[in-house]
Amino acid sequence: MSDFLTTMKRTHYCGHLGTNQLDSEVILMGWVHRRRDHGGVIFVDFRDREGLVQIVFNPEFSPDAHREAHKIRSEYVLAVRGTVRGRPEGMINPDMKTGAIEVMIEELEILNESQTPPFSLETDSDISENVRLKYRYLDLRRPHLQKNIMLRSRVAAEARQYFQEEGFIEIETPFLTKSTPEGARDYLVPSRINKGSFYALPQSPQIFKQLLMVSGFDRYYQIVKCFRDEDLRADRQPEFTQIDVEMSFITENDIIEIMEGLMARLFSRCLNRQVSLPFPRLSYADAISRFGKDNPDVRFGLELRDLTDILANTGFTAFRDVVAAGGVIKSIRIPDGKRLSRKDLDDLQNVVAIYGARGLAWARITAEGWTSPIFKYLTAEEVSKINSKMEAAEGDALVFVADTPAVVTDSLGNLRAHLARKLNLIDPDQFAFVWITEFPLMEFSDTEKRYVSTHHPFTSPVPEDVPQLRENPGRVRARAYDLVLNGSEVGGGSIRIHRKEIQSLIFEALGLQSEEVRTKFGFLLDALEYGTPPHGGIAFGLDRLIMMMTGAESIRDVIAFPKTQKATCLMTDAPSKVSIEQLMELSLKIV
Amino acid sequence: MSDFLTTMKRTHYCGHLGTNQLDSEVILMGWVHRRRDHGGVIFVDFRDREGLVQIVFNPEFSPDAHREAHKIRSEYVLAVRGTVRGRPEGMINPDMKTGAIEVMIEELEILNESQTPPFSLETDSDISENVRLKYRYLDLRRPHLQKNIMLRSRVAAEARQYFQEEGFIEIETPFLTKSTPEGARDYLVPSRINKGSFYALPQSPQIFKQLLMVSGFDRYYQIVKCFRDEDLRADRQPEFTQIDVEMSFITENDIIEIMEGLMARLFSRCLNRQVSLPFPRLSYADAISRFGKDNPDVRFGLELRDLTDILANTGFTAFRDVVAAGGVIKSIRIPDGKRLSRKDLDDLQNVVAIYGARGLAWARITAEGWTSPIFKYLTAEEVSKINSKMEAAEGDALVFVADTPAVVTDSLGNLRAHLARKLNLIDPDQFAFVWITEFPLMEFSDTEKRYVSTHHPFTSPVPEDVPQLRENPGRVRARAYDLVLNGSEVGGGSIRIHRKEIQSLIFEALGLQSEEVRTKFGFLLDALEYGTPPHGGIAFGLDRLIMMMTGAESIRDVIAFPKTQKATCLMTDAPSKVSIEQLMELSLKIV
Repeated sequence: MSDFLTTMKRTHYCGHLGTNQLDSEVILMGWVHRRRDHGGVIFVDFRDREGLVQIVFNPEFSPDAHREAHKIRSEYVLAVRGTVRGRPEGMINPDMKTGAIEVMIEELEILNESQTPPFSLETDSDISENVRLKYRYLDLRRPHLQKNIMLRSRVAAEARQYFQEEGFIEIETPFLTKSTPEGARDYLVPSRINKGSFYALPQSPQIFKQLLMVSGFDRYYQIVKCFRDEDLRADRQPEFTQIDVEMSFITENDIIEIMEGLMARLFSRCLNRQVSLPFPRLSYADAISRFGKDNPDVRFGLELRDLTDILANTGFTAFRDVVAAGGVIKSIRIPDGKRLSRKDLDDLQNVVAIYGARGLAWARITAEGWTSPIFKYLTAEEVSKINSKMEAAEGDALVFVADTPAVVTDSLGNLRAHLARKLNLIDPDQFAFVWITEFPLMEFSDTEKRYVSTHHPFTSPVPEDVPQLRENPGRVRARAYDLVLNGSEVGGGSIRIHRKEIQSLIFEALGLQSEEVRTKFGFLLDALEYGTPPHGGIAFGLDRLIMMMTGAESIRDVIAFPKTQKATCLMTDAPSKVSIEQLMELSLKIV
Repeated sequence: MSDFLTTMKRTHYCGHLGTNQLDSEVILMGWVHRRRDHGGVIFVDFRDREGLVQIVFNPEFSPDAHREAHKIRSEYVLAVRGTVRGRPEGMINPDMKTGAIEVMIEELEILNESQTPPFSLETDSDISENVRLKYRYLDLRRPHLQKNIMLRSRVAAEARQYFQEEGFIEIETPFLTKSTPEGARDYLVPSRINKGSFYALPQSPQIFKQLLMVSGFDRYYQIVKCFRDEDLRADRQPEFTQIDVEMSFITENDIIEIMEGLMARLFSRCLNRQVSLPFPRLSYADAISRFGKDNPDVRFGLELRDLTDILANTGFTAFRDVVAAGGVIKSIRIPDGKRLSRKDLDDLQNVVAIYGARGLAWARITAEGWTSPIFKYLTAEEVSKINSKMEAAEGDALVFVADTPAVVTDSLGNLRAHLARKLNLIDPDQFAFVWITEFPLMEFSDTEKRYVSTHHPFTSPVPEDVPQLRENPGRVRARAYDLVLNGSEVGGGSIRIHRKEIQSLIFEALGLQSEEVRTKFGFLLDALEYGTPPHGGIAFGLDRLIMMMTGAESIRDVIAFPKTQKATCLMTDAPSKVSIEQLMELSLKIV
């Protein structure tokens, strides 16, 4: 037991010291970040979670502490007692938050030693992420990761406080639940007591939170881990955290308002950034039509406009043939398009080709009219109508894609993002939120040969679309909404079905057999019979939100102990082999 | 979509209404708790999560609403608009929080209907728990369960706010971790991507929170689910919730103070009960000696006292032989022992027999001296010394057990609890906390034929006991502490080892091979080499704490969706069979 710890308590964190503490005695505990020996006086940049401060061992001031200080090396753990003093003129370090002061040490105890770390904690330079993940406990000492994790804690705390103030109840839902494969794969957990049976880890608390509304809890929230056994993409983790919300006796507007209030609060209190409310709303149809995506980045323009009508009977056969075959023609206007050379414009073909577009046409608007490879095929009237529709002015450039609606949407939606990056149109400091509403309720799945739910089968259809459920299920809009921030979906939800007859219609339209429905969701159907209130909710991806708030480039930089893209933990070596006894107890065999 | 919901918002919860709202128009949404038709006027006890209020449909006041109200039945979901008025003299219901008022309804919309529930929600009478669990969403409508779950939410919120204020950072630790079987069984999760490998669900975030201290986060907390695949006892659940805490640069006292502050705050803000600080502390040795348990209920006396020395050479051979064989003799004084008949006293033998005691002797203290079957075997001096040691007074009774130390401890510890219940010595409204400290670091396991950790192998030994680690490991005390409330352990923790050489000594004393240690805990040993600070922590069982705060008799009454004792969910039917395709993807076969 350290005598120091039993007799003395830390008085300050390093990073909190400043001229307010001048001449005060302070007790600090932390790590040696950097040590410099300057002609007999030893200077140490001393670190704790709140920051760095320079501590000084001077043989004239305290010979004992100075003698002991010769032993210390990087990452040693120290407890020190000393006096804060202003740095001499000319020694003030304006780059350091505590750079105006230093601490003259009178007493030092080395609480623990350290080997030389496998990588420097001072710089980010070229350390392989695999080494960082293996020594995650050291990686996490780096100030920018500490800041990310600490911001995450503040965000969670603010979110919880907000929900409590708004009358929400935090309720824990189970982790050992039932497997209802639909969408992503479940992680399974074999049961030992009920041999041959399995639990599943929840992909979301969806069904439980709906049942809590049936129970009358009225307003539920939870910040909760969810699990998906997916083939991992760069930005996914097998376990992820959701801010999960459900409310009764409400409509879309109530949920949207509550969540806008949450966002405003998180950005204001955790980042000191004001976001203006309400957020704009776009229907799914408008988002696709204007931005080519259902998660548009609205920090910049470059909107898509439809020229199909104007060009339906054009003399330019490549365009006319597309329209005749049911295709569409859309264009993006690039303000100040001179910034793109002719070669740049030609090269855009390669971008849209990735998304299946067979070609891309362009035009520059000059004082003399169009400069464009397709100018000669168009009539003056067509050019004039295009100019007018595109609101084109001198100096602009236009790009055109003619193809099937899906290809035009996809290629121009992505070209738009590409152009914005290339032309530096994105303000990285801006936070642009937009709600996307009225998603399609179902989409036809070519692999399953049936309609599948766009969100999940409990999503309520827009009431006036219900009559179309049998004939035109693909046309039915959902009472669903996503919140998009800077082109990333950060949350999504819906009003749920609270009437059994509508739920049955949906299952029918999805082609689900009633026995299958009964096995998977019988208890939910039963619940609909016993006084289910109108309700709806939303779930926010916390990891993604923190990434955007911190500007982190990887989701692994906002999670304390993340998994690799192969779903492994390089530090603990999970997953790993287990003993044959463990498998026997579970009546399992690896084949 | 209900027109009501789009045009009107709830103004109040039912249970919040009172004379403050007299003559106000209110809009309420909730469930029909009970409906009574009184000569044309329909009265409904209307319910939401905050309570009940009487709503009135009067044909003279609103014929439309009254007509519609004829359709309503128990558990129908309604939205109503009406005016609060005082109840007529004589109709005030003092048993109902809102009993001074009622709401005259002007507008009614039936939002959803309900079948007759499978059990009454008004009473607790003889509903099988299995039926309640199958229809958990209805069971959860019952006011006392709603109160438990809502208190749980408040406790979690207060705890989090407290920790945030005290400078703790909430950090999420992984759920898909590595299996390190030690103590209880792990729940395993097969990996699909890494075939033949398994994750384990955490039994606690122990290792991760220690690594967070190595990382310098300094103060960590989390309210987190943990998992143990145990053969379930009445009060256990396969998944349970822990308030988990770890701190750096501290001693036992710092953690104890922080946690006492937490308890005081939770009891004051959530139950309006003041608990006095600091809590008493008892060493493990004293707890065993005085109460026969390491989780003593200190709401009552009946302490054990040792008479071995006094009776070592007694003429009563049954006692003398026990002492000669290394056994002990202990006694409990029962104040006002007349309440126990001679038969009662004799019957106490049956209680101690459960714990292996071969007999129990007793004595009554009367004005004339002892009345006791063993009186004749004792000398006057022995009786006098016993009286003095036991502080026995007229009217008391004494009970004695002579046996091995373990049997005496166990039988008298349990007899003490039995007597307290039988004699009604326990004040059910009292909350009596006590810290138990200095647990043994290791115990010899007869099954494993080696010493095993009492808590876990990262627990720090008391420094002055370290020299005994090799010779007398069973004598080494741990820097471990439990918090006991009314005889239940609600939390426990320890100061951890932060020096590699001590950790190696411990693994050696536990007889763990270095290769095994390396495989299981290699990363933790590595971490100890790179500047691990002195640290320690604690974990509280939230489920148990809420049980004690609510007075719930079953842990299932404080969890929204609990499992049965067979670890099944009767509502969702989890665990359940999964498809052969799911197993094939995991390369698993059920044998």
